[in-house]
Amino acid sequence: MSNTALNRTEAYRIPRNIVWHEGLITKLERWTLNGHRSALVWITGLSASGKSTIAVGLERLLHMKRVRSYILDGDNVRHGLNSNLGFSEEDRKENLRRVGEIAKLFVDAGILTIASFISPYEQDRDMIRSLFPADEFIEVYLDCDISVCEARDPKGFYEKARKGDIKNFTGISAPYEIPTRPEVIVNTAKMGVEACVEKIFSFIRAAEIC
Amino acid sequence: MSNTALNRTEAYRIPRNIVWHEGLITKLERWTLNGHRSALVWITGLSASGKSTIAVGLERLLHMKRVRSYILDGDNVRHGLNSNLGFSEEDRKENLRRVGEIAKLFVDAGILTIASFISPYEQDRDMIRSLFPADEFIEVYLDCDISVCEARDPKGFYEKARKGDIKNFTGISAPYEIPTRPEVIVNTAKMGVEACVEKIFSFIRAAEIC
Repeated sequence: MSNTALNRTEAYRIPRNIVWHEGLITKLERWTLNGHRSALVWITGLSASGKSTIAVGLERLLHMKRVRSYILDGDNVRHGLNSNLGFSEEDRKENLRRVGEIAKLFVDAGILTIASFISPYEQDRDMIRSLFPADEFIEVYLDCDISVCEARDPKGFYEKARKGDIKNFTGISAPYEIPTRPEVIVNTAKMGVEACVEKIFSFIRAAEIC
Repeated sequence: MSNTALNRTEAYRIPRNIVWHEGLITKLERWTLNGHRSALVWITGLSASGKSTIAVGLERLLHMKRVRSYILDGDNVRHGLNSNLGFSEEDRKENLRRVGEIAKLFVDAGILTIASFISPYEQDRDMIRSLFPADEFIEVYLDCDISVCEARDPKGFYEKARKGDIKNFTGISAPYEIPTRPEVIVNTAKMGVEACVEKIFSFIRAAEIC
């Protein structure tokens, strides 16, 4: 944590002589306890652009730096909270709305939250951005040419989409709107995982979140 | 943290000489970083039985003990994540299902989570219990005679329910199923707030969560 960030939170140090308080614990009190601030890192990009890999690498690096972080992605959200949602346009929108609202609770709880979703529409991403103060939302665009994603195709989705077996597949039969003002862009076709993670972490550090 | 709890987590200390790891951070790694375990404290009881007051007091005490905790209740869940749910039987069930799923994510993230909901049906509470290992779910029943709750009636709900202006009001025109196997019972009619909070905290401490 830089000195400036420390000074920010120092002002909110818990008084040690007070035994009983009224009222909810504030986000600032949580930041003080943790020794770092919280925010939402929103990772957007095509299927197979490396979202999960980057998210896991970033979480691992943050943990090593003693920063409390947590990943929200299709694996833990779609199978639990959003198990009653399908993949219609309406359900996808509701999926992202709920993720935004959970992320808000996580950030309020003092966790540096990492959300990893294709989230192809700027409107949806901006809806989530609007839930947060400007310095608590970091949009990370994984810039990776679709030809590279398609060559990787670890789950065979692109092949199925080309055959028409999957409808409305982002990049093939449905649009991906490139972010117009992401806080961080990493090119996962040209840079290694560690370099991508380091670039995102550098932004987080420069923003004095930790 | 007791010695036993410390020993439990000591076994999972992060190796300091390893620079790059694969895979998600585990709950055990989070516990080690925080110096305490996580669980869900589920507070159930009639309207005006003191759920919010106890939840806030417990969170405040835990924070003073440097335990990361967070409250999920109607205030932060109904207005955000579940703003698209009403109060029909189906929507109440879905409300609690979503709360259970979010709580699961919070506990996985290492947060000692406090949920405060009337949750009148044993079936719903047991559904939530089933989402957790036995030692990560603590049901707290606020035992408070309805006459006391009705005399308090801070929001005027009981009066409206008696007049029939609110339908299906728990305790008046809808059942409240008393928990048959809660981990903790506190009588908020006979005990003060601090004593209730201390009793719950003692259980948490004895369970070696912190």
